[in-house]
Amino acid sequence: MMEPTRFDLSQDRLPTAWFNIMPSLVQAGIQPLPPLHPGTKEPVTPDLLAPLFPEALIMQEVATDEWIDIPGGILDVYRLWRPSPLHRAVRLEQALRTPARIYYKYEGVSPAGSHKPNTAVAQAFYNKEAGTKRIATETGAGQWGSALAMACSFFGIGCQVLMVKASYEQKPYRRIFMETFGAEVIPSPSPTTQAGKAILEAHPDSTGSLGIAISEAVEVAATSNGAVKYSLGSVLNHVLLHQTVIGLEAKEQMKLAGESDPHIVIGCVGGGSSYAGLAYPFIADRLAGRTQTRFIATEPAACPTLTKGRFAYDLADAAGMTPLLPMYTLGHSFVPAPVHAGGLRYHGDSPSLSLLVKHGHMEARAYTQSEVFDAAVRFAHAEGIIPAPESAHGLKAVIEEADAAREADEERVILVNLSGHGYFDMQAYDDYLNGRLPDFEFDPAAEDAAIADLPDAPSLGG
Amino acid sequence: MMEPTRFDLSQDRLPTAWFNIMPSLVQAGIQPLPPLHPGTKEPVTPDLLAPLFPEALIMQEVATDEWIDIPGGILDVYRLWRPSPLHRAVRLEQALRTPARIYYKYEGVSPAGSHKPNTAVAQAFYNKEAGTKRIATETGAGQWGSALAMACSFFGIGCQVLMVKASYEQKPYRRIFMETFGAEVIPSPSPTTQAGKAILEAHPDSTGSLGIAISEAVEVAATSNGAVKYSLGSVLNHVLLHQTVIGLEAKEQMKLAGESDPHIVIGCVGGGSSYAGLAYPFIADRLAGRTQTRFIATEPAACPTLTKGRFAYDLADAAGMTPLLPMYTLGHSFVPAPVHAGGLRYHGDSPSLSLLVKHGHMEARAYTQSEVFDAAVRFAHAEGIIPAPESAHGLKAVIEEADAAREADEERVILVNLSGHGYFDMQAYDDYLNGRLPDFEFDPAAEDAAIADLPDAPSLGG
Repeated sequence: MMEPTRFDLSQDRLPTAWFNIMPSLVQAGIQPLPPLHPGTKEPVTPDLLAPLFPEALIMQEVATDEWIDIPGGILDVYRLWRPSPLHRAVRLEQALRTPARIYYKYEGVSPAGSHKPNTAVAQAFYNKEAGTKRIATETGAGQWGSALAMACSFFGIGCQVLMVKASYEQKPYRRIFMETFGAEVIPSPSPTTQAGKAILEAHPDSTGSLGIAISEAVEVAATSNGAVKYSLGSVLNHVLLHQTVIGLEAKEQMKLAGESDPHIVIGCVGGGSSYAGLAYPFIADRLAGRTQTRFIATEPAACPTLTKGRFAYDLADAAGMTPLLPMYTLGHSFVPAPVHAGGLRYHGDSPSLSLLVKHGHMEARAYTQSEVFDAAVRFAHAEGIIPAPESAHGLKAVIEEADAAREADEERVILVNLSGHGYFDMQAYDDYLNGRLPDFEFDPAAEDAAIADLPDAPSLGG
Repeated sequence: MMEPTRFDLSQDRLPTAWFNIMPSLVQAGIQPLPPLHPGTKEPVTPDLLAPLFPEALIMQEVATDEWIDIPGGILDVYRLWRPSPLHRAVRLEQALRTPARIYYKYEGVSPAGSHKPNTAVAQAFYNKEAGTKRIATETGAGQWGSALAMACSFFGIGCQVLMVKASYEQKPYRRIFMETFGAEVIPSPSPTTQAGKAILEAHPDSTGSLGIAISEAVEVAATSNGAVKYSLGSVLNHVLLHQTVIGLEAKEQMKLAGESDPHIVIGCVGGGSSYAGLAYPFIADRLAGRTQTRFIATEPAACPTLTKGRFAYDLADAAGMTPLLPMYTLGHSFVPAPVHAGGLRYHGDSPSLSLLVKHGHMEARAYTQSEVFDAAVRFAHAEGIIPAPESAHGLKAVIEEADAAREADEERVILVNLSGHGYFDMQAYDDYLNGRLPDFEFDPAAEDAAIADLPDAPSLGG
């Protein structure tokens, strides 16, 4: 009898509530900081967000309950691919000659190929309930746009996607995916918004950034007289909340595997939603003192928000259409080099995840493109799956930790979020295989200039 | 409590033997016909195949046992993605307003995105056991080449893929996928073989065909003095045998769903291996008189082997490197129009599947590209998954049968093989969405000219 290497949950064990990390933070003495109005610098009240989001999502954004029920209309769609599988990477362990036991939660089984539909479906559902007819959003690598396009199609809502130009050009298949689900896709910066026009006038060759694309999408909604709502694929509390189905399932699956408390939980961070989705149900145990699990967030060396950014109040977008968020940031006008991990090209991070790093509950590491693709190809040769460039950042840390376990001769248990597959990222692999993958350097000067005039985050509670 | 829509098998229920249809055919009075030597027209003996295949595969090619054990080294790799899921397409049923219950077996969860690894892994394993260092093969859409590249990488075998030029140009991501697993990919017809050179001299603009690519790959192996073996992704008995894990799992899963005997089992046919893989464990029950399940094989109108071909002995390749096979064929020099379903651009069909059609146990239907992509997009809008163009042929038949069930007001149970996803086929969807998808017509004159000089198949047994 062979040892099992895949741990499935049947559909009746799909989580029926999302997990909200906020009470755990507060109980651990970490006080969440409010977003501030960019003009008055006063805390933002929910009504200010009403032009952008339906009320249900705004209430989730400020929710203090630990559990929030998942409506049946969302579960019905989740069940197209959830619960997602948890695999033990036995062949990778063998290839690395490590005593570590490596598990990956695989979100690439979703129809859009990543974790993003977990929140896209929820956001489309609540918008449909609120009568929304059309949603505008931005997308980096195209994972988020694909997910929202699909979700909007399911609920009969129109969808407009501002796609970061670097990805629009690198990933035509992602554009076509969104168009197959009826979405309108526009490269950003675009001449269709004031924010886009301003960028194009200053930098006609701009390859775009998530910050710019967010400005454009927010502008579309804010200037629509209520006809269009806005949707964000990461960073905000309600987005991270929806992603916790990943970690809730993974906790059950790790128990099935006989590994209730992993030693190390790893993921990649752009805005932070996929990693928070896996990590938060586990980190609550650490915050409560029940475990000593280590958490490692990974990011690109070209956009090292957690490792080189400043913890400060900064705008979530480039043009100042959004509140100021308390987070690690490289400055809202920072435009990262066009690394293939387009989903990690964001100047900031989720506020709650930033707090966890600031308070030492999460480590952070930055990797260059060639390190990341080297890890990706090693994983593929062992496990078959070609990972998304974003997810491969986590795999680089997995390999480092598996090596460390071998050096320490310890049977450490490593859990990683394989947040998506790389089937839409093959051009990046072509570049890697043919030595055309530049290892962009981060320029600290670009950061300082951009966030010099921002108010520092207030001193932390606790 | 919601009704389940996904029926998982745990890893310990992965089939441990493949199902061989041959005894069922014989017991039903259908005598399999032997392949013939193209020169002597005498039945081919196993030793003639020895330069191309390892002995274990040749023995499977002529096996008469009903069950053939799957070695542990193959099961270890299958377990990376198998058992694959069976879904009930509830949202599609609702969209079609049909009383039919529609189930799809989803092979797109394999790392290469299709059913092809089921046999690629087996073939690589047996080659490794026999000491093979390098394998040459052809690929149409790239699904087969991707699967074999991955399988060869797992077992440390070199891999050379002759890729039909039409697909090579339409699907660069497929080429990169194979290269990521270390394979060498060459567009066919190529100047690297005599067969390729001859085609290029006669037709410099040839977009290639599976028949031509097979000639080239067989030539590479046959002229290698034993250094290179050959591997075929469909048509042959041993390939279909390996694919029966699909149907064996599906039978168990349909029982879990409470539907032991589906009314209709549907799939697409190029060489026939994915459809045989699903259908054969079910059709054995029909051959034995235990069920009256209907079987519908679907194919492109541009390459209508089963619906417009002739049942005759024909070469498996274009240049005459292979035995004559008894099958439905459009003639071995027939070059199908470059439809996006590259995996279905083959001039013949598996001999056993041809016999089942000839004897009336399987129906066959041909569809144009626009019909097929229309079905694909309807499926995607309901279930999320964007299907491979090949698989979408089956979905077109599903929709027809769901419509028929509505008209008859009958709760028919339909099972279809969703043999792969379309993430590497997005250019085809772009063409469809923008009205650039030609509905190629089949030219009967091309067929007659090509097979006029071939011996007819002997009269059928029974």
